[in-house]
Amino acid sequence: MSKIKSKNSLDMTSEEFKEYGYQLIDWVADYLDNIEKYPVLAQIKPGEVKSQLPGKAPSNGENFDRMIDDLNKIILPGVTHWNHPNFMAYFNSTSSGPGILGELLSAAFNANGMVWKSNPSGTELEETVLNWFREIIGLPSNYFGVVYDTASVSTMHAIAAAREYTGLDVRTNGMTGLPKMILYCTEQTHSSIEKAALTLGIGLNGIRKIATDENFAMLPDKLEEAIKEDRLNGYHPFCVVATIGTTSSTAIDPVDAIANICAIEKIWLHVDSAYAGVTAMLPEMKNFFKGMEKADSLVINPHKWLFVPVDFSILYTSKPDVMKRAFSLVPEYLKTTEESVINYMDYGIQLGRRFRSIKFWFVLRYFGVEGLQQRLREHLRLAKLFAGWIDENPNFERLAPVYFGTICFRANPNNNLKEDQLNVLNEKLLNVINETGKIFLVHTKLKGKFTIRLVISGLRMEERHVEFAWKLINEKLNELKNQ
Amino acid sequence: MSKIKSKNSLDMTSEEFKEYGYQLIDWVADYLDNIEKYPVLAQIKPGEVKSQLPGKAPSNGENFDRMIDDLNKIILPGVTHWNHPNFMAYFNSTSSGPGILGELLSAAFNANGMVWKSNPSGTELEETVLNWFREIIGLPSNYFGVVYDTASVSTMHAIAAAREYTGLDVRTNGMTGLPKMILYCTEQTHSSIEKAALTLGIGLNGIRKIATDENFAMLPDKLEEAIKEDRLNGYHPFCVVATIGTTSSTAIDPVDAIANICAIEKIWLHVDSAYAGVTAMLPEMKNFFKGMEKADSLVINPHKWLFVPVDFSILYTSKPDVMKRAFSLVPEYLKTTEESVINYMDYGIQLGRRFRSIKFWFVLRYFGVEGLQQRLREHLRLAKLFAGWIDENPNFERLAPVYFGTICFRANPNNNLKEDQLNVLNEKLLNVINETGKIFLVHTKLKGKFTIRLVISGLRMEERHVEFAWKLINEKLNELKNQ
Repeated sequence: MSKIKSKNSLDMTSEEFKEYGYQLIDWVADYLDNIEKYPVLAQIKPGEVKSQLPGKAPSNGENFDRMIDDLNKIILPGVTHWNHPNFMAYFNSTSSGPGILGELLSAAFNANGMVWKSNPSGTELEETVLNWFREIIGLPSNYFGVVYDTASVSTMHAIAAAREYTGLDVRTNGMTGLPKMILYCTEQTHSSIEKAALTLGIGLNGIRKIATDENFAMLPDKLEEAIKEDRLNGYHPFCVVATIGTTSSTAIDPVDAIANICAIEKIWLHVDSAYAGVTAMLPEMKNFFKGMEKADSLVINPHKWLFVPVDFSILYTSKPDVMKRAFSLVPEYLKTTEESVINYMDYGIQLGRRFRSIKFWFVLRYFGVEGLQQRLREHLRLAKLFAGWIDENPNFERLAPVYFGTICFRANPNNNLKEDQLNVLNEKLLNVINETGKIFLVHTKLKGKFTIRLVISGLRMEERHVEFAWKLINEKLNELKNQ
Repeated sequence: MSKIKSKNSLDMTSEEFKEYGYQLIDWVADYLDNIEKYPVLAQIKPGEVKSQLPGKAPSNGENFDRMIDDLNKIILPGVTHWNHPNFMAYFNSTSSGPGILGELLSAAFNANGMVWKSNPSGTELEETVLNWFREIIGLPSNYFGVVYDTASVSTMHAIAAAREYTGLDVRTNGMTGLPKMILYCTEQTHSSIEKAALTLGIGLNGIRKIATDENFAMLPDKLEEAIKEDRLNGYHPFCVVATIGTTSSTAIDPVDAIANICAIEKIWLHVDSAYAGVTAMLPEMKNFFKGMEKADSLVINPHKWLFVPVDFSILYTSKPDVMKRAFSLVPEYLKTTEESVINYMDYGIQLGRRFRSIKFWFVLRYFGVEGLQQRLREHLRLAKLFAGWIDENPNFERLAPVYFGTICFRANPNNNLKEDQLNVLNEKLLNVINETGKIFLVHTKLKGKFTIRLVISGLRMEERHVEFAWKLINEKLNELKNQ
C-alpha cells in the first residue's frame, strides 16, 4: 500500500505517475508472463462485474491503489484473454510489448493529427510506415495508405469511394433519384460489407451475392453474368468486394480474374484482406495475392495478425484523389496554409485521429521484417500440422482448405451420423470445450454444416498449445461419445 | 545504453518489457513535467520528419534503445504539443496521468469487446461508467450510452438512427426511390454533420441551414417554417441537429424550443455537445442545457475537455432500439447465447471495439466528480477573466458571447479600420503569434470577420498561461502597428 498523496490541483504529479506507472508496467509484464494461468474465456455470469461496481462515481478523488485493487479483484476475472495462446477464436489478435509501449506514448502525446500542422510527426510517421509496409507486402508505389480504426470503417470508406467513382455526385445530391446501385460479393464476404451498404444508403438489397465454388471462392463467370443482367435491368453496378481470406473459412476469391472484369466494366474493386493480407509479406504466399495490385482499394489489419494492439487497420488505394473527393470538407477553423502536405482528415469521416503510427513503427522495428516473417511462418506451419492431425483421424473431418492459419473442421466419428446429428454433436462439442475455459474456439456454418474454427495467429502460441488443443478436443469428443 | 538482449522467438521478454517500460514511464513523466520547454506548435517544415526516417523497414529487429533515440531526435521536434498549457487552439484536448495509465492497460489486454462474451468486463465497465456519467450530467435513466471513437462517428450513427426512425426501411432498400430526406442545422453546425450527410447518401443538398440570431443560435421559428415548406415540396424532414457549444463560437441553439418542434413534427433531434457537454456537470451551467433531456440522441466527448486521452466519444440515446434496428447484423461466427447482455457491436458499424472504458473509469475515480468540477470551473473563470481583458481594451473587440472556455475576438485598434483591413490585420496577427511557437491559436470567421479563437480547456492551464497569452497578443499587435 502506497502512501496517500495530496491531490495536485492540475494533473497527477510526476512522482505519482512514475510510482503507479512502474506498478502498472510490472502488472502488465506479470500478466503477460502468467497469461496461461488464467481461463482464456472469462468464467463469469452476465452482470457479475457490474454488480461489484458502485452505482455512482466517487465525489472525491480516490487513491490509485484502490483502482489497482479493483482491477485485480473485479475486472481481471471478467476479461476474456485475447493474449492467451489458447485463444483460437474469431481472428485472434494479440498485442506485443513494443506495440503496448507505443500505445503508451500515443496516449501521452494525445496529439490529434487531423491536419499536418496539428501533428506533423504523426502525419509523416504514418506516411512513412505505411510506405514501408506497402513495399513489404509488394504493392506498387502508386498506392496511398490511410490508417482507420477498424476494417469495418476502412471498408465503408472504400465503398463510399466506389460510389464517388461512379461520377454520379452522390456527395452533393445523395442517393435519392439515382438508379439503384449494386455491390457484388459472396455469401462468405464479411458482415462489414453489409453494414457499409446499410449505412451508405445503398441498402441490403443493393448487395448481390455471387455464387461460389466448392472452396467458397467467387465464380468470376457468375459475376460477369450478374453485372450484365443488372445493367439490362437499369441498375448501376458500382463495386465488387473480393476477399483474400474470408472470415468463415479463409476462402480466396480469384482477384486477378475479378479485377479484369472490373476493369472492363469500370467498376471499383475493393479487396478485403484484413486478416490474411499480412502474409503477403512471405514470398511463398504470393500466389494467393495474384491481382492484388489491380485493386482500387485494399484493406489489411496489422492489429489482427501482426501484433499491433487494436486498433490499426490500413486502407491502401490507387485512387486517393477519389477518396479525397468523396470526403474532403474543410471548415474555416481547419484551414491551413502548408502546401504539399497530407491532411489525413481529407480522407475520411473521422476528424480526430490518434497518433497510431508510433505503435506500428515500434513493432516493425523491434521485430524487423524477418522477425515478423518468421512468426507468421511458424503459425502457418502449426496450422498445417493441426490440419494434418484432423485429416488423419477418422473421428474428424476438415471442411475447408487451410491456406493460412485457420482450420475449419468438425467431428464426424467414423462417418456414420446424419447431417442434423452431426450439427447437434458439434455444437455440443464446442460448448463443452469452451466451458473448460482452457481453450476458446468459435463456430461458423459452411454449406449448412456446423463448423468449428481453430485460428492460429497469437504471438505467444507454440506447438505445445496446438497439441494441447488437439488433446482436449479429442478428450471432449470421447466424453460425448461415451455419454 | 542498455545491454542488447537476444530476441525471444515470441514477444519481448518480461525483463525487457519492464526495462523499457520504466524508461518510457520516466520519459512520459519528464515530458509532461517539462512540457512548457517545448514550442507548442511544431517548428518544422513539411517533410522534415519524413526525410530523417529510412526508406525501408529494417530486416532485422532493432534494439529498443534506438527507437527511444529516434523518438527524441526525430519525432519529438515534429510534435505539436496538445498537452502544452499554451495550446489554445481548436478545442484543445489534454490527457491526464490516470487516463494515460488506463490506455496502457487497454493496449495490454487488447480485448475486443464486439460481443459481451469476448470482453465481459469491458462491456460491463462501459455500461457502468456511462451510467455514472449520465447521472453526473443529469440525463434521465432511459438514456443508453455507447462509446465511439470520435464525435464525427457518434454523430453519423445518430443521423443514421434518425433515418431509420422514419420507418422508410432504408436499411433494406437504400435511399434510391425515396423522397429527398432533409436534415436541419445552422451555418455554425460542425462539419461532421456534412460529412455524415455525404456518407449516408443524404447528400450535402439534403442539409438545410436555418438562420441564426445575433449570437449564432438557431431561430426556432425559421426551423418551423422550413419544415413546413419542405413538407409542402414533397421532401421528408427527418433530423434536426442542435448544438450546445458550436465549434466556431460555442453558440447555444435553443434546444428546448427545438425539441418541442421536433416532437410535434416527429423528427429525430440530435444534440451535439461534444465540446461543452461536460459542463453539464456543473449545477450553475444547467440553464445552457435546457431541453437536453428531450433529445433523441446526444454526443459528449470526454476526450475533449475531461482529460481522457483521445479517443472517447459518448453517444447517449433515449431510443437504443432504433439504433440497434439501424445497425444490428449478426453473422454466424458472432452468434452468442447469453441473454440480457449488451453486445455493443449491435449499435454500430465498428465490429472491433477497444477496452476504452478503463481510462474513463480511472479518470472519474482519480479526480472524483468534485475534482473534475473544480477544474472545469477554473477554466470557466479564466475564460471570463480573459474576456474581461478584451472588453476593457480599446485595441480589441469580442465577437461572440463567452459561455464556456472559448473566447472569440479580434484586434480592432480604436475602431478605426475598415472591415477588409481588419481581416488582413487579424490574419497577420494570428500568424505572427503562432510563429513564435509560444502559444497556438486558430481562427474562424464570424459574419465575415476574421476571428481569433482562444480556448481554455487544458488540464495544465493556469492563470499565468492566460496572462502570458494576453501579453504576447498585445506585444505582437503593437509590433504590427509600429511597422
